[in-house]
Amino acid sequence: RKKYRIAVIPGDGIGQETTPEGLRVLDAAARRFGFDLELVHYDWSCEVYSRTGKMMPDDGLEQLRQSDSVFLGAVGWPGVPDHVSLWGLLIPIRRGFDQYVNLRPCKLLPGATTPLANRGPKDIDFYVVRENTEGEYSSVGGRMFPGTDREFVSQQSILTRIGCDRVMKYAYELAMTRPRRKLTSATKSNGITFTMPYWDERFAEMGKNYPGVTTDQFHIDILCAHFVQHPDWFDVVVGSNLFGDILSDLGPAVAGSIGIAASANINPEKAFPSMFEPVHGSAPDIAGKWIANPIGQIWSGAMMLEHLGEKAAADAIVSGIERMLSEGGPRTRDMGGQAGTVDVGKALAEAV
Amino acid sequence: RKKYRIAVIPGDGIGQETTPEGLRVLDAAARRFGFDLELVHYDWSCEVYSRTGKMMPDDGLEQLRQSDSVFLGAVGWPGVPDHVSLWGLLIPIRRGFDQYVNLRPCKLLPGATTPLANRGPKDIDFYVVRENTEGEYSSVGGRMFPGTDREFVSQQSILTRIGCDRVMKYAYELAMTRPRRKLTSATKSNGITFTMPYWDERFAEMGKNYPGVTTDQFHIDILCAHFVQHPDWFDVVVGSNLFGDILSDLGPAVAGSIGIAASANINPEKAFPSMFEPVHGSAPDIAGKWIANPIGQIWSGAMMLEHLGEKAAADAIVSGIERMLSEGGPRTRDMGGQAGTVDVGKALAEAV
Ligand SMILES: CC(C)[C@H](C(=O)O)[C@@H](O)C(=O)O
Ligand SMILES: CC(C)[C@H](C(=O)O)[C@@H](O)C(=O)O
Repeated sequence: RKKYRIAVIPGDGIGQETTPEGLRVLDAAARRFGFDLELVHYDWSCEVYSRTGKMMPDDGLEQLRQSDSVFLGAVGWPGVPDHVSLWGLLIPIRRGFDQYVNLRPCKLLPGATTPLANRGPKDIDFYVVRENTEGEYSSVGGRMFPGTDREFVSQQSILTRIGCDRVMKYAYELAMTRPRRKLTSATKSNGITFTMPYWDERFAEMGKNYPGVTTDQFHIDILCAHFVQHPDWFDVVVGSNLFGDILSDLGPAVAGSIGIAASANINPEKAFPSMFEPVHGSAPDIAGKWIANPIGQIWSGAMMLEHLGEKAAADAIVSGIERMLSEGGPRTRDMGGQAGTVDVGKALAEAV
Repeated sequence: RKKYRIAVIPGDGIGQETTPEGLRVLDAAARRFGFDLELVHYDWSCEVYSRTGKMMPDDGLEQLRQSDSVFLGAVGWPGVPDHVSLWGLLIPIRRGFDQYVNLRPCKLLPGATTPLANRGPKDIDFYVVRENTEGEYSSVGGRMFPGTDREFVSQQSILTRIGCDRVMKYAYELAMTRPRRKLTSATKSNGITFTMPYWDERFAEMGKNYPGVTTDQFHIDILCAHFVQHPDWFDVVVGSNLFGDILSDLGPAVAGSIGIAASANINPEKAFPSMFEPVHGSAPDIAGKWIANPIGQIWSGAMMLEHLGEKAAADAIVSGIERMLSEGGPRTRDMGGQAGTVDVGKALAEAV
């Protein structure tokens, strides 16, 4: 019997409410598909920061390293600046564990409401593959002539050959597993003329190894427009850290699933644990009311099982979500229902 | 009788077809509102480049400088790389004439079709103000260790105090003229931690001069999502060169007007001529067929007249467009009709 060690970090706000429901469904899947989950809980959060001055202990990464995966709720709370909360917990895990792929499914689930007119589930079903360690989110930059009229700030965007090639390889491989075998690259080489032409170069170069994949590329401005006008054009989309970030919020928005979208921060080589988290944040406005929708958390759990090699269990969770939504199961308020967080979690555990 | 000198650059592809219709409507407006337009035509284009090796003559900017405004069609043609066509004509004009504001109306016109469900003209009516000279489109960068595994490229993003303050001032002033007096800033200070926090700082600082303007700010990822989910939230949106570029394609896409959207590249101090161009490109696929929609070009002409101080004439053109569309006047194919470019131009000249 296989056993996986999972580091659980509920974090802040509704993360405290959705994580237990994620675990409830994971537990049901483990029992049905015959594997064990060993859970190790961490209370790292803004709340702990306010008492200890640290988002995680100095040896935090070493502690997490013992686990097969990290299952995260949400990070961030009003009053704690982002450079403390995000850069003290979320970003160090992504980078420290070289989780260089951020993967997000953009899928119109049956029964979910897209803001687009005349679009059904078969029109919106693609993945965004985002580079997750370099690019526009660099640590090289600074400010000059502070406080004067000549003041300026500068920040480098950096693309390495290693960084581009490995995320593109992942994207091409993913495209190979999809029926349409299509890969789109997000660029802006007509305006950002040092980094983005290099991105294009590496995309074309890697493509030589995948003659079976159909490719195209669009500048990010018109690509965002196409997401709205022609979501059916896309199958797998690969982008830099910033472009991937934008597209992986816009994609779920177009699919009407931004409140329920899942994401995976993956180290494909499994040299380090990967991390799975819903796309939504800590939602201070509804935290503590137990009305948050746990589907994003539960769907992230499915992505975790798939990464661990439990594909059948992962599929059972995703189809459980689809079935529950299309058969009119319990819904939280954001989806027009009255159910609480726990009701949805229980229904999905049942469905699995 | 006032007289304005207009440099006309039809450029490439459908620019050759839409520009004459823009001029036809401008001419009608001039006659009705009592001013003169002195047109100076320039054939600068990829076609001329292929004969002469230059997109514009060495003294191109000096020639244009004699005019009050530049009226541009489209730049770019297959086979001529962007760094030649765009960086040889469009970008040098924007930068050489310090056109630091790129202004684009995002408006759902009556009779136009938005891809969004259940949205009408009063839900989508805002402006995107884009910084047009610095930021992510910088000229500082390069490549190291070429051809090896250690290869990397780097490009700086640069925000200056002068550059931020002047575009923000313009955006705040524009917000003051709008009934809702609301200004939204596009940021990404949670991920891009040197430049974007500075953008936020200058936005807050400038806001002190405009207590009557309501402000908010969103990270670009969720802002793109909000454009799709809640376009009615926005009134004036200000963004850096890249973020403004993205939002000013996404905004018109959401409004169903990407094929007919207008844009202005403005030097507000009028130290240099400003430039007015449709958002669409040269559209090689339909060029030469005289079926291109000239509304974007004509609308850009209205923005030009407004900038020159002929507000009544500008308003007459915009309401002419709205009237023609809602009363079922001639439409090109992209809007579901059968009319040619010239038919629409004539109808609008008539309407004015
Ligand atoms: C052609 C390109 C360089 C340009 C830009 O990004 O500035 C275009 O997208 C625009 O918005 O006018
Ligand atoms: C919180 C922020 C730094 C983060 C990012 O941009 O990476 C978030 O938007 C995400 O996509 O996970």
